[in-house]
Amino acid sequence: MARAHWGCCPWLVILCAYAWGYPEPPDLGREDVRNCSINPPYLPVTVVNTTVRLTALRQQLQTQNLSAYIIPDTDAHMSEYLGTADKRHSWITGFTGSAGTAVVTMEKATLWTDSRYWTQAERQMDCNWELHKQVGATPIATWLLTEIPAGGRVGFDPFLLSIDSWNSYDLALQGSDRQLVSITVNLVDLVWGSERPVLPSQPIYALQEAFTGSTWQEKVSDIRSQMQKHSKAPTAVLLSSLDETAWLFNLRSSDIPYNPFFYSYTLLTDSAIRLFVNESRFSSETLTYLNSSCTGSMCVQLEDYSQVRDSVQAYASGDVRIWIGTSYTTYGIYEVIPKEKLVTDTYSPVMVTKAVKNSKEQALLKASHVRDAVAVIRYLVWLEKNVPKGTVDEFSGAEMVEKFRGGVLYFYLGQSHCPVQCWAAPLSAFSPLLSPTKELNRKLSTDEMYLLDSGGQYWDGTTDITRTVHWGTPSAFQKEAYTRVLIGNIDLSRLVFPAATSGRLMEAFARRALWNVGLNYGHGTGHGIGNFLGVHEKPGLGSSPCLMPPASLCLPEPGYYEDGEFGIRIEDVVLVVEAETKYPGTYLTFEVVSLVPYDRNLIDVSLLSPEHLQYLNLYYQTIREKVGPELLRRQLLEEHEWLQQHTEPLSARAPGPASLAFLLTASALAILGWSA
Amino acid sequence: MARAHWGCCPWLVILCAYAWGYPEPPDLGREDVRNCSINPPYLPVTVVNTTVRLTALRQQLQTQNLSAYIIPDTDAHMSEYLGTADKRHSWITGFTGSAGTAVVTMEKATLWTDSRYWTQAERQMDCNWELHKQVGATPIATWLLTEIPAGGRVGFDPFLLSIDSWNSYDLALQGSDRQLVSITVNLVDLVWGSERPVLPSQPIYALQEAFTGSTWQEKVSDIRSQMQKHSKAPTAVLLSSLDETAWLFNLRSSDIPYNPFFYSYTLLTDSAIRLFVNESRFSSETLTYLNSSCTGSMCVQLEDYSQVRDSVQAYASGDVRIWIGTSYTTYGIYEVIPKEKLVTDTYSPVMVTKAVKNSKEQALLKASHVRDAVAVIRYLVWLEKNVPKGTVDEFSGAEMVEKFRGGVLYFYLGQSHCPVQCWAAPLSAFSPLLSPTKELNRKLSTDEMYLLDSGGQYWDGTTDITRTVHWGTPSAFQKEAYTRVLIGNIDLSRLVFPAATSGRLMEAFARRALWNVGLNYGHGTGHGIGNFLGVHEKPGLGSSPCLMPPASLCLPEPGYYEDGEFGIRIEDVVLVVEAETKYPGTYLTFEVVSLVPYDRNLIDVSLLSPEHLQYLNLYYQTIREKVGPELLRRQLLEEHEWLQQHTEPLSARAPGPASLAFLLTASALAILGWSA
Repeated sequence: MARAHWGCCPWLVILCAYAWGYPEPPDLGREDVRNCSINPPYLPVTVVNTTVRLTALRQQLQTQNLSAYIIPDTDAHMSEYLGTADKRHSWITGFTGSAGTAVVTMEKATLWTDSRYWTQAERQMDCNWELHKQVGATPIATWLLTEIPAGGRVGFDPFLLSIDSWNSYDLALQGSDRQLVSITVNLVDLVWGSERPVLPSQPIYALQEAFTGSTWQEKVSDIRSQMQKHSKAPTAVLLSSLDETAWLFNLRSSDIPYNPFFYSYTLLTDSAIRLFVNESRFSSETLTYLNSSCTGSMCVQLEDYSQVRDSVQAYASGDVRIWIGTSYTTYGIYEVIPKEKLVTDTYSPVMVTKAVKNSKEQALLKASHVRDAVAVIRYLVWLEKNVPKGTVDEFSGAEMVEKFRGGVLYFYLGQSHCPVQCWAAPLSAFSPLLSPTKELNRKLSTDEMYLLDSGGQYWDGTTDITRTVHWGTPSAFQKEAYTRVLIGNIDLSRLVFPAATSGRLMEAFARRALWNVGLNYGHGTGHGIGNFLGVHEKPGLGSSPCLMPPASLCLPEPGYYEDGEFGIRIEDVVLVVEAETKYPGTYLTFEVVSLVPYDRNLIDVSLLSPEHLQYLNLYYQTIREKVGPELLRRQLLEEHEWLQQHTEPLSARAPGPASLAFLLTASALAILGWSA
Repeated sequence: MARAHWGCCPWLVILCAYAWGYPEPPDLGREDVRNCSINPPYLPVTVVNTTVRLTALRQQLQTQNLSAYIIPDTDAHMSEYLGTADKRHSWITGFTGSAGTAVVTMEKATLWTDSRYWTQAERQMDCNWELHKQVGATPIATWLLTEIPAGGRVGFDPFLLSIDSWNSYDLALQGSDRQLVSITVNLVDLVWGSERPVLPSQPIYALQEAFTGSTWQEKVSDIRSQMQKHSKAPTAVLLSSLDETAWLFNLRSSDIPYNPFFYSYTLLTDSAIRLFVNESRFSSETLTYLNSSCTGSMCVQLEDYSQVRDSVQAYASGDVRIWIGTSYTTYGIYEVIPKEKLVTDTYSPVMVTKAVKNSKEQALLKASHVRDAVAVIRYLVWLEKNVPKGTVDEFSGAEMVEKFRGGVLYFYLGQSHCPVQCWAAPLSAFSPLLSPTKELNRKLSTDEMYLLDSGGQYWDGTTDITRTVHWGTPSAFQKEAYTRVLIGNIDLSRLVFPAATSGRLMEAFARRALWNVGLNYGHGTGHGIGNFLGVHEKPGLGSSPCLMPPASLCLPEPGYYEDGEFGIRIEDVVLVVEAETKYPGTYLTFEVVSLVPYDRNLIDVSLLSPEHLQYLNLYYQTIREKVGPELLRRQLLEEHEWLQQHTEPLSARAPGPASLAFLLTASALAILGWSA
């Protein structure tokens, strides 16, 4: 494939709002990257001097008798975004990219990151650091074997490695006479000292009942009921992922960018509810809401966040079995629970239950999507008027969509994923852009495509939508590629499939129209989303579409990317619903929740089958019915007129060769007076 | 799903030739099954008395100090079919079904088998045996924990458990204080004694060069080259699967039903070729062919088959690394190789290389498929004439297809999978039939569907094809189901996909047309096939379609089964070929190698898209061009005329609702004088 690979997670590579169109990628052999091969080395102004930090860290290594120390790009909850106090890999290296593992020995300091970030790392790291263009535990462990002597000790913070990551390091070092050493005090934090950002202290608040699908008591009872039905009879569920605790108690805060979460763990046992959190962040009303003054099985006992490891260890000394989700629980918790007392699944029952939205949650999220569509449509209309004037650049454009979401719409709390400032890094696979130079202030023009991937956090829902538009005359190839991406979106969205089919087995439907002509895209096809929670929920995080239980959400997002030229993506939120099939059976399909029309200027109707047209026109009718009245209610008459134009039924104006053959047959039959 | 599940492998459930059409499944509460709940028990005549055998086996258990002994349904090569001397589970239980594990303790004797075989087991086992309606190591181990005391020893023959199976038992018993004990002398064989069938002694012969794609020396060099390129630098490849050795040396025999294999192992090292086999089965010419009188790196050293374990153990004591395919190597070999000297993959490089057919092999297999099409077409013509007379039953029908393959066609050596006699067992999921009663002599009639799944072994290729036909008036539902199965076959066969796409990700294309209306089938969608080798080759054995390297073969076989009423399956051999795509890239697609038209009587053309029709008509044109001349050359004029009729181009005679909408639009455009 000619296309760039983005690793497994397109959402780690969020393209907020940007345009392609560089005839050639910028030349990189220049003064904006370091050159450590000359003496003295050349360092651009963007580089951070890490010598003092590294010296201090190496003193800690000596104190702990370590040969090496691993500094991952994670927090204790395997969160998608890191709070500022958790960006240890950035502080120690100078490199601010979201993905990268630092490893420090007494002699060397290394950063391991993927191709998206290589240029950024060369711009930000000083010559203390080697850049390794690989990722994962295996190459790091292989390197460690050559760098540290037999008998060497490799330190790590057990709260920053998931069980799976720890297993990978452990496997790679097994039998090598190098020992992995779990050190619960983070050595970077010791060096960072008072400069380290303080932990969040803003209030943790309960959602209004109007915005919740169930009370926390109902959710607790449901999870306990799942514990009782489980064949291994777990006595407790341990929640490590921040969205699990936020969902379970209908509590929110803002510790993590874009995600309304707060640092916490929950140990939900058959007889107690133990919430590990900074108690001072609760108001007296919230404490009452949580029944925190009692000790019964439906009272929430608050314990300090820092006590979780000791408390779990103490609990695990009894006759208990603790159910955990292994894909995000850290080794720091795992290592204190005897193996025979663990009940393991990839996801905890909370994570799986949370993916399924009940009827109230569905109503809420649908309402948020109607309002979100108003914001996106306002933005598209605004762009259509202002881009031709030459006054819109990528920054001001993305600021406008935020303004339309926030300024006009009620229940809005902020963006659901990374903002304008992070445009640049993801683009490195296509045209490396990082520092705020003229490229980042690049004007939008009617000569090129524009891709907008954005979303909002509302009290009643989380949104995430991608539309690609062109205000001028797209090339035939651009139209073909766009239409084939659209066909992929439609083919996946209208698929009827048996209950319990893995999303992984369906995603090729989103690619077939591209494959047919030798095109493809290098990322996964979908992910889940929460209700005023994460924009990328765990079941579904992976290289393939989401788990597909009925009433869960999925965001199919096929695309096509022409290196250095243009990018296309179409992303919708869809709800898994029961399909009405001709013959009885439990079959599912998708209902599209996002409500913004696709750019007609980019659709080559001749590539669409009658079924595609029928589907599209039905979708457009739905958009008119749901968004039209909302626009009128807000007296957005210009936008309403725009919506009518952009949702006019499409018809087969220009049949392709296959359709043409059918047309001829059909015409011939019509002439012969034949009818069905 | 209303359909029966057949486990993972449809080819374990080979339906040779049978008809559905029983208004109701036969009543089973009758005298043809045992009744152990009355005193004395009722035993039908089909039951085998196993009391003496069990007593003798339990004496062996005492001698070996065992609490239990596991008797799997396997041989030492994990072969698909068992030679008679390997049917230990059948001899000890009386049950002759191909799938079932027996477990004997001092007190109990149990058979573990799946739903296809429950009735058969009740007809064949005496009351010494309990029937357990489960399969797999976990339920057996769970049962053992309740049946044998702590400290108990569970014996097994290490040559009858694959590494994976052994791991499953080991995992399930871990920490239970029950020990798995590997005993290299098979205890059933000791008891079976002189009654056990003798091992095969017929000659092992070399294929004529005209029928081989490469010489064995070329293949050996290729595999050694793969060893050298491997990052773990294996010094040897151990071949455990019988088709691996047969393929590598271009040798064949007939030790296994339907498969031209012979009992053997090969240890191919960087400096020696060691073939473990019964040497007396080679003629002096074959010994010369193998250079067996010398000892250089291109000479084949013959060692006795029984020596393989000791020889591998001796070899493994050196500074070596042995590359094995873990999915079919047995614990008997595995346990004598130190773990650090193993290089493991699911399949050995021989298995993977064998799947890819070179141009000569492709030419050979295509020639065999032209002749095979002649046989199948002759049979279909014969059926069309004779079924209406009421003179054809399932037996005589299937005998005829064998006659047409064998009697008229050169290079024919026999059927490629199970013959007429095994119709019955697979049907148990639909209408249990076993003993040769009137049901098995059931007449074929023009009132019902007929499914023929059959294949032949030829010097130049192995064939396997399934066609479903109806000679009368199929119901609308039968036509719809058949057409949707056909659409699935076409959609998969015409798929264009990037190189290295897993077959698993494609198989939903074979199901979508069925899913759309709430129908499905309960088995996998494909498998590989050899050139005068196995009809179900290992890469591809599994619940999903084959591995898809270019030039490999795959047999997509979607189906639909209406319990007790009718069954539909369409199976073709297809070759993975490079696709010509509009834009450059390495994309693959399939070329259909099977050359028999589908039954027009069962196709509802209104369900087919213009693309489906175009594909079908192109396929029919290919059949005419390739099979037509062969029929004429053999002066099969009636068959030629039949072929012409059955490959007439199909046209869109009866548009469905969606096509109709398009028809109307198209007609309207035609009237308006609009053109593309």
